[in-house]
Amino acid sequence: MRISELSTQTEVPVATIKYYLREGLLPEGERTSPTQATYGSEHEQRLRVIRALIGAGVTVAETRKVLDALDDPPASPHDLLGAAHAAVMPPADGQIDTVDAERLARDLGWQPGLCDEQVLAGVARALQGVERAGFRIPDAVMAAYLESVRTLAQAEIANVPTESPEAAVRYVVLGSVLIEPLLLALRRVAEQVASAERFGGTVVEPESAP
Amino acid sequence: MRISELSTQTEVPVATIKYYLREGLLPEGERTSPTQATYGSEHEQRLRVIRALIGAGVTVAETRKVLDALDDPPASPHDLLGAAHAAVMPPADGQIDTVDAERLARDLGWQPGLCDEQVLAGVARALQGVERAGFRIPDAVMAAYLESVRTLAQAEIANVPTESPEAAVRYVVLGSVLIEPLLLALRRVAEQVASAERFGGTVVEPESAP
Repeated sequence: MRISELSTQTEVPVATIKYYLREGLLPEGERTSPTQATYGSEHEQRLRVIRALIGAGVTVAETRKVLDALDDPPASPHDLLGAAHAAVMPPADGQIDTVDAERLARDLGWQPGLCDEQVLAGVARALQGVERAGFRIPDAVMAAYLESVRTLAQAEIANVPTESPEAAVRYVVLGSVLIEPLLLALRRVAEQVASAERFGGTVVEPESAP
Repeated sequence: MRISELSTQTEVPVATIKYYLREGLLPEGERTSPTQATYGSEHEQRLRVIRALIGAGVTVAETRKVLDALDDPPASPHDLLGAAHAAVMPPADGQIDTVDAERLARDLGWQPGLCDEQVLAGVARALQGVERAGFRIPDAVMAAYLESVRTLAQAEIANVPTESPEAAVRYVVLGSVLIEPLLLALRRVAEQVASAERFGGTVVEPESAP
């Protein structure tokens, strides 16, 4: 198909497709003339993946790394997962204190050597962001966070398809990244439901008259 | 304190502080001369909040809305939560089909009227992103997502402090936004742990010899 039809099929503007071509995210089509090329279903599928990743908040540079992991995956699904995570996280610079992050990770079943340093550094940075705002997470809430991510991660990993490397690769790489906006969106719904059940229509009484 | 000390205390560069002042995120200090101002602890605290929000991926425009909700909060913690969510989500344009999102929301205890349209639209957009990549979430995994967000949201809302409106405001507004990077980071650790337990060192066998 020509680039105009590729654009129609994927709902990605032609100018954006050309940008992805220039950035090397999308491979060149087959040249039919000096100014035209044709594209096949593999381009369409790749373009859908690119659009989904970028729509999920992944940068162009990170998207390139995710695509690299899809194109040339490590043999083990475990290393695949590491590659997918690495693609969307800044590199660990060894500067951040991961003591608190390791404590939480142990509650998730972590032991030294089981996770990339980068992933622990990511937890440490996130904790730092919370603390710097002067926000304290109640112990009961942190316990709920740990229980929840353990539940969902076990289900995710249990369902990695193993009938083919390609299926495992797509599932692991896309699943870890694309699901992030969905989880956050579902959490907002659940928060509003719980809040309506607890507070709907009631007002927090100030301690003294205004 | 002068702007240089504010910078030292908060580890925010002076140029960045001046940017926040120009953008109106940070209120002006008290002028002590035509070219100098002094800043107090309320500036320091606000700056920490700004930095934490922006570090959590919130844009300047969204940060402004979060700060507005902190400065002039609705009376009800439920409306507060809606304001915090609204600050970090694009406005609903009524164009997206929310049928699938509503089905998932019902599994989270939603009933019509219990949530902002915007939050449901957010779920719909996230689902759309996943589907457009050709990624299918196994039923067991979706069930785990729903169970997990329900668990964590109930703990979050149960722990909203009610002894003062200010405490409730900070908790709700900051908690819903600042926690997002932490949840995603904890999920990555949990995924790597579960993956190491399932796959560590093993290779997905291709169906035919390479």
